[in-house]
Amino acid sequence: MIEWKNFDTTAAYAKLNGLKDKVVLKEVMAGENGAERVAKYQVPMSNGLTYNFAAKEVDDEVLDALCGLAKEAQLAEKYEALYNGEVVNTGEKRLVLHQLTRGQLGRDVFADGVNKRDFYVGEQKKAADFAERVHNGEITNAAGEKFTTVVQIGIGGSDLGPRAMYIALDNWARKNGCSYMEARFISNVDPDDAASVLNGIDVAHSLFVLVSKSGTTLETLTNESFVKDALKKAGLDPSRHMVAVTSETSPLAASKDYLAAFFMDDYIGGRYSSSSCVGGVVLSLAFGPEVFARFLKGAADEDVLAKNPDPMQNSAMLDALIGVFERNIKDYPVTAVLPYSQALSRFPAHLQQLDMESNGKSVNRFGEPVPYVTGPIIFGEPGTNGQHSFYQLLHQGKTIVPLQFVGFKNSQLHQDVLIQNTTSQQKLGANVAAQIMAFACGKDDENPNKTFAGGRPSSIIIGEELTPESLGALLAHFENKVMFQGFVWNINSFDQEGVQLGKVLAQRVLAHNTDGALKAYSDLLNI
Amino acid sequence: MIEWKNFDTTAAYAKLNGLKDKVVLKEVMAGENGAERVAKYQVPMSNGLTYNFAAKEVDDEVLDALCGLAKEAQLAEKYEALYNGEVVNTGEKRLVLHQLTRGQLGRDVFADGVNKRDFYVGEQKKAADFAERVHNGEITNAAGEKFTTVVQIGIGGSDLGPRAMYIALDNWARKNGCSYMEARFISNVDPDDAASVLNGIDVAHSLFVLVSKSGTTLETLTNESFVKDALKKAGLDPSRHMVAVTSETSPLAASKDYLAAFFMDDYIGGRYSSSSCVGGVVLSLAFGPEVFARFLKGAADEDVLAKNPDPMQNSAMLDALIGVFERNIKDYPVTAVLPYSQALSRFPAHLQQLDMESNGKSVNRFGEPVPYVTGPIIFGEPGTNGQHSFYQLLHQGKTIVPLQFVGFKNSQLHQDVLIQNTTSQQKLGANVAAQIMAFACGKDDENPNKTFAGGRPSSIIIGEELTPESLGALLAHFENKVMFQGFVWNINSFDQEGVQLGKVLAQRVLAHNTDGALKAYSDLLNI
Repeated sequence: MIEWKNFDTTAAYAKLNGLKDKVVLKEVMAGENGAERVAKYQVPMSNGLTYNFAAKEVDDEVLDALCGLAKEAQLAEKYEALYNGEVVNTGEKRLVLHQLTRGQLGRDVFADGVNKRDFYVGEQKKAADFAERVHNGEITNAAGEKFTTVVQIGIGGSDLGPRAMYIALDNWARKNGCSYMEARFISNVDPDDAASVLNGIDVAHSLFVLVSKSGTTLETLTNESFVKDALKKAGLDPSRHMVAVTSETSPLAASKDYLAAFFMDDYIGGRYSSSSCVGGVVLSLAFGPEVFARFLKGAADEDVLAKNPDPMQNSAMLDALIGVFERNIKDYPVTAVLPYSQALSRFPAHLQQLDMESNGKSVNRFGEPVPYVTGPIIFGEPGTNGQHSFYQLLHQGKTIVPLQFVGFKNSQLHQDVLIQNTTSQQKLGANVAAQIMAFACGKDDENPNKTFAGGRPSSIIIGEELTPESLGALLAHFENKVMFQGFVWNINSFDQEGVQLGKVLAQRVLAHNTDGALKAYSDLLNI
Repeated sequence: MIEWKNFDTTAAYAKLNGLKDKVVLKEVMAGENGAERVAKYQVPMSNGLTYNFAAKEVDDEVLDALCGLAKEAQLAEKYEALYNGEVVNTGEKRLVLHQLTRGQLGRDVFADGVNKRDFYVGEQKKAADFAERVHNGEITNAAGEKFTTVVQIGIGGSDLGPRAMYIALDNWARKNGCSYMEARFISNVDPDDAASVLNGIDVAHSLFVLVSKSGTTLETLTNESFVKDALKKAGLDPSRHMVAVTSETSPLAASKDYLAAFFMDDYIGGRYSSSSCVGGVVLSLAFGPEVFARFLKGAADEDVLAKNPDPMQNSAMLDALIGVFERNIKDYPVTAVLPYSQALSRFPAHLQQLDMESNGKSVNRFGEPVPYVTGPIIFGEPGTNGQHSFYQLLHQGKTIVPLQFVGFKNSQLHQDVLIQNTTSQQKLGANVAAQIMAFACGKDDENPNKTFAGGRPSSIIIGEELTPESLGALLAHFENKVMFQGFVWNINSFDQEGVQLGKVLAQRVLAHNTDGALKAYSDLLNI
């Protein structure tokens, strides 16, 4: 029987508070003991990935308490309930089914009169067929010429995830000779965004993917009009250049304005939609459906591992628990995500939405204010770039920021140079290894300005290479981590009521229905 | 007589602590009082910009205390000392002269036997002449063909600032018919970064700008070799395709490997170098020297305004003081920078370095640990994109994050569409106005999940349009803000000792001279 209870009412919470200062990183990571921790404190993931948490402020006793928390908070049971189709998004009274887009984890889930796994697979098949017909020249522009570019029009989850995944696999796909269309993205309502993308492409050979679940997103519909306008001005028929990704109940679904429509539903939140048609259409067009299928497989593999009730064998669950320890017990307000891979340059921006929109809440799932802190602020840039930017504060600032590194043994393009006997890839790896130790152990110095206090915790996910499979696994790891943390905090990670007020007020401004400070600001901005 | 003293020893510190909870945003921003605050609480800047701080948790009494702090901490005097050539970077015993790259603010500054303003102007002139000769076809590749692309090779300050400025002016320059070369950037030591850029350009018509002050930056020298290798493989002579931006004392300065060399010096920190040749060469090549000159003029105008000892007429100083109030008195650990302009998409990443590398310190300028917190963590993405991402946490999360908005009345490209009677630019402006009020005042609701507590402070810089001048002014505003905060905190904002340890350890890994955990991590990463 599942019980939803506040984190601070668990026995584990009290126990963990007593262990707050138990582990001093500088001490435990020194010498041979440190090497033993690196060997011991890791959890194998799927597709060549490993989660290593040796440089976190935990030891066997803390881990034991965290395992107790996992049990007490029924993390595995709640995940099971979720993928078996219980209404876990209680605020909006919805199922949460994004894992079903990539695999069947439990029993068949029926909703809206259909088997939802069949529904998602069916839409993927539609997208794959469509992409193949575009690639083989069956679907062309009115002049019978092949489309060369695909442009996603969407914002938030319809933009950040798919864009991050596209950037992550762009080099890989070109190198591996995949079917290839260049992808571009229009998201911001700022007219310079759409205009700039349109000025930079050949619209006559471009296919636009309009993505809005509700079919009512202000930015997306505005940008659609922007694009249609440009197509018409170029003497082209917009309906020959556009497809829609939406829900079956949206006004876009039955419209004749689109070459085709692909469906998602209310059980897939925007920030969890990269593995639905929201990511599937653009990625299948860009790289071919087989690449997208491999990405889904990677995510599915990781979803299966997340079922394990033992955190010591479940990287997403353990990562979640350590994050809770850092947020609630150690009181660290921020977490940085630092991939040592240029291909993952926008992955932190995606995780920023995934995490902060899911767990940036102040009330529990029953609408009661929670007395403890919840999701952290997330930011990040790829290394080694970040080392020459904000790492100064991370090393010597007054606020400790836990770090989440990602690194790979091999590059994607396998183009490298040997300088001073090492490759660039080796230099990249050497830097992340060095940073972990510099953050953990610091360095004493006679000059206080050159002293590093250490005690900055980090984990690293190490992979063989960033492939469609490992990317999918990485994505699922973080989705599941965020889900488990939401379970611990007893919040609903699947709604986002905090985005509504701004929308309402913006409409009021546009209708010139304002007074007081809102009118004053509108006047200053010449609206 | 200038006195460097710790913030907590000032009378203002005690006074401000007593005012911590004086202003309740929800109350003061409501009704006509709110409108009056919007009208009253603004400071004119240069080049059409205005700094509006109505939605900050201040009132006349708090502002009075902040003005007292400015006087007590001698902010204007310290700035004067800086631009007159005193050794303000005491740790490295260096002058701090980036403002001299764009104007003469005080007396002539001599160092290394020359008038430094003349030196910077001379190098700008060299860069301008060079760019013009490239544009008019005097300087070509070996086949006598014009260069069409410029690629900056640099990291940290040699990358983030110039890249953000390039993106900010790209649309503007194309629209305004400037001399135009496409710019690309290689920064990361990840071989996929250089390989990907090289695969995407026509190297035969590309000019590479190698930027390293010391001439020893690992990433940059590695990427230079990478690029030279590619040029040679294409049958090209690298020395016909490369220029250097470095210091006169660096090993690169006298090398025959470059078509030309442009100089900066030790008095310009990397993160303050956008207005030196580090930004000047690439931006003059990309957009023409006259655009870069206009950018410098905007920055110089703002530097002049920053001389005003009265914070109520000095936006950078006031912004700094309010930031200190938020960091030290209100104890907010993070600040978000949210430009409502897609062209400023990488401006937050630049500010992240500028701020966190400058003020992420724990010791004062005498090397003594400071007992108060210093620079905040900075992150941000452009609006309205962020609204569909992390704003959920900003509105309803447990941690209050002060916000720094930027907005413009007009778009850059002036391409817009009218939908439901409003343009996209109006929708953009309506959104930022709405967000400010939603954050400040929140909204009560019967459903706690739909309740917004408000009390989230923000400021906004409003401009007419993002032009070279207003971009320069914006950059200088933030540089000067960070400088003033460093003065208040009594820290050295111009060194970055925190980046050293990682470099040393990485070299040790590459030399296989490690043991313990560092060796264990290196093994896991296959180095």
